[in-house]
Amino acid sequence: MEFALIDRIRRRAAARGDVVLGIGDDAALLRPAAGCELVATCDTLNAGVHFPSETVPFDLGWKTLAVSLSDLAAMGAEPAWCLLSLSLPQPDAAWLDAFLDGLLELAVDHGIALVGGDTTHGPLSIALTALGQVPAGAALRRDGACVGDDIWVTGVPGEAAQALAQWRSGVPVDATLRARLDRPTPRVAAGLALRGLATACIDVSDGLSADLGHVLRASGVGATLALEALPCSAALALLGRDERRALQAGGGDDYELCFTAPPARRADVLSRLAACTTPVSRIGVVVAGDAPRWVDAEGRTWCPPRAGWQHFLESPA
Amino acid sequence: MEFALIDRIRRRAAARGDVVLGIGDDAALLRPAAGCELVATCDTLNAGVHFPSETVPFDLGWKTLAVSLSDLAAMGAEPAWCLLSLSLPQPDAAWLDAFLDGLLELAVDHGIALVGGDTTHGPLSIALTALGQVPAGAALRRDGACVGDDIWVTGVPGEAAQALAQWRSGVPVDATLRARLDRPTPRVAAGLALRGLATACIDVSDGLSADLGHVLRASGVGATLALEALPCSAALALLGRDERRALQAGGGDDYELCFTAPPARRADVLSRLAACTTPVSRIGVVVAGDAPRWVDAEGRTWCPPRAGWQHFLESPA
Repeated sequence: MEFALIDRIRRRAAARGDVVLGIGDDAALLRPAAGCELVATCDTLNAGVHFPSETVPFDLGWKTLAVSLSDLAAMGAEPAWCLLSLSLPQPDAAWLDAFLDGLLELAVDHGIALVGGDTTHGPLSIALTALGQVPAGAALRRDGACVGDDIWVTGVPGEAAQALAQWRSGVPVDATLRARLDRPTPRVAAGLALRGLATACIDVSDGLSADLGHVLRASGVGATLALEALPCSAALALLGRDERRALQAGGGDDYELCFTAPPARRADVLSRLAACTTPVSRIGVVVAGDAPRWVDAEGRTWCPPRAGWQHFLESPA
Repeated sequence: MEFALIDRIRRRAAARGDVVLGIGDDAALLRPAAGCELVATCDTLNAGVHFPSETVPFDLGWKTLAVSLSDLAAMGAEPAWCLLSLSLPQPDAAWLDAFLDGLLELAVDHGIALVGGDTTHGPLSIALTALGQVPAGAALRRDGACVGDDIWVTGVPGEAAQALAQWRSGVPVDATLRARLDRPTPRVAAGLALRGLATACIDVSDGLSADLGHVLRASGVGATLALEALPCSAALALLGRDERRALQAGGGDDYELCFTAPPARRADVLSRLAACTTPVSRIGVVVAGDAPRWVDAEGRTWCPPRAGWQHFLESPA
């Protein structure tokens, strides 16, 4: 099983000039860029936990890479290489091809080369390690937010959670929302544009409020957030006020970036993100304290129904 | 679950001077050594497939890292950093602590720092990515074996397979053999010692004959191997001739190195591997051709009962 599948993967893996040796030896040989730091992240997706079991393999391949690219984006890193560990219940070449279609379409978009990994037997589980590069000292981190900084978020948080809520309740999932859940857009270009501009950055895969909380704890500050400033979408506008707030502040699986930047750089934020066609909204301000506080248009505090996103969609196999 | 377990891991992960940012941001930030290539490998271990389900967590942690260190060793790389993706059926802190005991004991031995990864819910599955470094151009590869080169193997191949054979047949597994299966010794020092000396190298995790076959195909050569030259051990000596040969040439899960080197460097091979206390045996010679040929003391050809090691110990969960 392993060798035939690995050959299928090897034949389709694109090259990069800095890949000395890709798939096919004991390990890959890669040439790091001079003056750069290496950025490394690893994520696992398990059937029935991180995605509904019926997710089509193309989308699963896409999402597998998107999740890790989003982590690179949050560091301001340029994607370079990735390794794939794939556990499959049976050696299914058609499934693998469709999975690679999705993964490699996104890989080509971002110039990241698949350079290694393994395929093996087991319950469906996918672990991907992504490696990127960033000029030394230029990475975006969680610990640099300062009192007075603006707080920004890309895109429209809450739509992936809305798709999941529909799926859980058994109603047909809106196609646009489903695409947000299954084929998230990693904000790589935005991460690169924010180098030297954002004081802190994180991706909001665990939910906006919870992930911003990580930034605040790492930076030793608090935040005041305006519920009215959260960007809406046609689908979210159909929800009741409290449901929409809960999904936008508390829902997960949105691969948007939340970042802080000095108010003096507001115009730079808007112009740089416009240049990479990334929608962005200013949703709050960093204050003294240690947690996010959400307020409505009348200044009343609102608490998200729970802090942070929990996976575990279904009982695991 | 995730955050509490990640905190447990973070508290225990040792530092290295070249880790700018370890566990706790969207990704790790690492400082590659100047003039070096990066060596990257990724392996998955699944319960019931790559290890008997009753394997104790200490041994599993050890083996998880050993498998990937062995790949770095086969490239002549110096271990630097690793990322761990851990899927657990339930958040079991005691299990995790024992697993980390094993993994980190070996990590400390080899100066490799755990810098990231994730823990999540799912059937027990462990994916580890190891990153190492090697001076540019100095990596050991599979494709450099030349006609006339000696063929060498470290240690005593076959003992892990013997342990597995005992386990499968239901007899009590000899403790020494069990340790070879569960706590393999990655030949990192040997790999470093072979830089500039070996013309090709591979680790024999899939079985000596099959893995040597990969070297021969990549190098476009064949090999003649002397069955009588295979090193024996007390446990292997108890077996019948054919059974011993089958385990030594065809059995897997031995994390030894098989490498080629010019006969003119025989004394260097012996002295350098003696200096790092790695046993080594000269078992054959590279010839024109495209496959390994095993011969006995009388010059008769012997064929291993099957080419290559197959995992899948038990039915997967």
